[in-house]
Amino acid sequence: MHDTLYRVFLKFKFSEEKANLIANIFTDNTLAGVNSHGINRVPLFIEYVINGSIKIDAEAEKIGSFGSIERWDGNLGPGIVNATKCTNRAIELAKQNGMGLVALKNTNHWMRGGAYGWQAANEGCISILFTNTQPNMPPWGGKESRIGNNPLIVSIPRENGHVVLDMALSQFAFGKINDYKLRKEKLPIHGGWDLNDELSNDPEKILIKERGLPIGYWKGSALSIILDMLSTLLSGGDSTYKIGMKDFETGISQVYLCIYPSIFHDTNLQEKLLNEIIDYTHNVEPMKEGDQTYYPGEQSMRNRVRNMINGMSVSEVVWNNILRLLDN
Amino acid sequence: MHDTLYRVFLKFKFSEEKANLIANIFTDNTLAGVNSHGINRVPLFIEYVINGSIKIDAEAEKIGSFGSIERWDGNLGPGIVNATKCTNRAIELAKQNGMGLVALKNTNHWMRGGAYGWQAANEGCISILFTNTQPNMPPWGGKESRIGNNPLIVSIPRENGHVVLDMALSQFAFGKINDYKLRKEKLPIHGGWDLNDELSNDPEKILIKERGLPIGYWKGSALSIILDMLSTLLSGGDSTYKIGMKDFETGISQVYLCIYPSIFHDTNLQEKLLNEIIDYTHNVEPMKEGDQTYYPGEQSMRNRVRNMINGMSVSEVVWNNILRLLDN
Repeated sequence: MHDTLYRVFLKFKFSEEKANLIANIFTDNTLAGVNSHGINRVPLFIEYVINGSIKIDAEAEKIGSFGSIERWDGNLGPGIVNATKCTNRAIELAKQNGMGLVALKNTNHWMRGGAYGWQAANEGCISILFTNTQPNMPPWGGKESRIGNNPLIVSIPRENGHVVLDMALSQFAFGKINDYKLRKEKLPIHGGWDLNDELSNDPEKILIKERGLPIGYWKGSALSIILDMLSTLLSGGDSTYKIGMKDFETGISQVYLCIYPSIFHDTNLQEKLLNEIIDYTHNVEPMKEGDQTYYPGEQSMRNRVRNMINGMSVSEVVWNNILRLLDN
Repeated sequence: MHDTLYRVFLKFKFSEEKANLIANIFTDNTLAGVNSHGINRVPLFIEYVINGSIKIDAEAEKIGSFGSIERWDGNLGPGIVNATKCTNRAIELAKQNGMGLVALKNTNHWMRGGAYGWQAANEGCISILFTNTQPNMPPWGGKESRIGNNPLIVSIPRENGHVVLDMALSQFAFGKINDYKLRKEKLPIHGGWDLNDELSNDPEKILIKERGLPIGYWKGSALSIILDMLSTLLSGGDSTYKIGMKDFETGISQVYLCIYPSIFHDTNLQEKLLNEIIDYTHNVEPMKEGDQTYYPGEQSMRNRVRNMINGMSVSEVVWNNILRLLDN
């Protein structure tokens, strides 16, 4: 998969270095079981390259520095490249100062935000990362989608498998809702609003107007608004409001905050405390026999192991679409 | 209210300074309309003083310093006093370094976390604050409450009214669920699990086993676990697991992170960006005629104004209980 994607990106004029990095992340996201932001997303990524939303040669650059806080301009470069660079910079700042923050404006979709949470954890850093998006949920009480599902990532390094939360603020992604629709199933809980402005678990009805439900109803709506505010004002970039006025979802704003817990010189204690929490939440009697509870990031790690052994499962339609990109 | 509470706290041997601060915050929380963590909570606070969970003379002290990150030990002092002090310290660190973090262990309930978000915003600081709690929700898939509703506060200073999110990770507080029970009403949405391990909106059934629903179902469960991990390992303090083993909810762990956005020297731009987001989410057509959308903290500010004009509404039973504390 990496080799094929690498050739696709070279064909679309990416430098070897960028083609390699982007192919790595798309492949890695698929390996983690997140096909929606891995292999399935490649054709849309190429569309954004073709329509000019993603500038293949643009480089993110530092535009301001204030102690352990920096502002970067992504110059509309590929989101994956900008995100990797800014995560790396936040890690460096954290290793120097205990804590570092990079606010990035004018970037593009980072695909799976969790990838950068794992990147930070692999370097021994805690990370808190978030991005704004185009509008896809109504602010609580409103009729029209005007807030983003603004994914929030929190990661903690751990010897026996990092803890990584990677969570959009919508209860379900529209892609997931569409899967239910294709299977002619209802959602297990509310996922958005129907045409009559009633909360609904009917995928067909929700998808007509694409008004997704925020996690926690009014609570996630408020969290979405304030994460958009933080991304926007820390980076000086575009808000969900401005992004929604564009033809494509581009020029978004993101925050990368890293903390280096090794400064405390009690790594063993930290491991012990983490494992206590994991054991306590694991060793609970399941509600439904055979069910299991997981810590954040555990399922993604298991997917990775399973896919390393059995290979990744990829839709034939998607794979053929990608091969066709190499044809002409 | 302040004068009465001040006399109560003096009677229970608090220093004048602490009695004044604690009376201020309880009164202010009530003024903001949060009686549950204002006036209504005073009798329980005094119970904790009497049973020794809250050490009235204990002072929070710095136990470690790593650049702009500090670790503090609350020594089981009053949560309000410790929280005010640590917020103040995080503000100082942020003004010196752009960003500051204080991790606090061995503290007590801070009552309304939002109070410290407002405190930071009044000093021109962004804040991200969170605390762990005793277990009150099941980890997703589990049968027993083993994770906390770990309130999360995010605040942003703004000229025409700060933006302050103050959000527990439970969909409803048990106190709120009890209000529905007393009114013999069902919750508008799921609020927890019934005795048959089914999601329920029946307050009576939920309250028997007190298994609250996390916001966003599995998502809030994961967020709760990771905030507990951050509070615990950054402070080196007790996790929800350890707190749950105690007779009372005491010795909890908290994080105070402040950012000083004035370092960017573009306050006018920041105000403009914030107001754009507020206007966009405000000016949406409401789903139900006459309804309105709010930005985080707006309703609390309105409550304050209304209560300043009309006086605060306080339960007679609660008020008489407090007066009785002065009697003997």
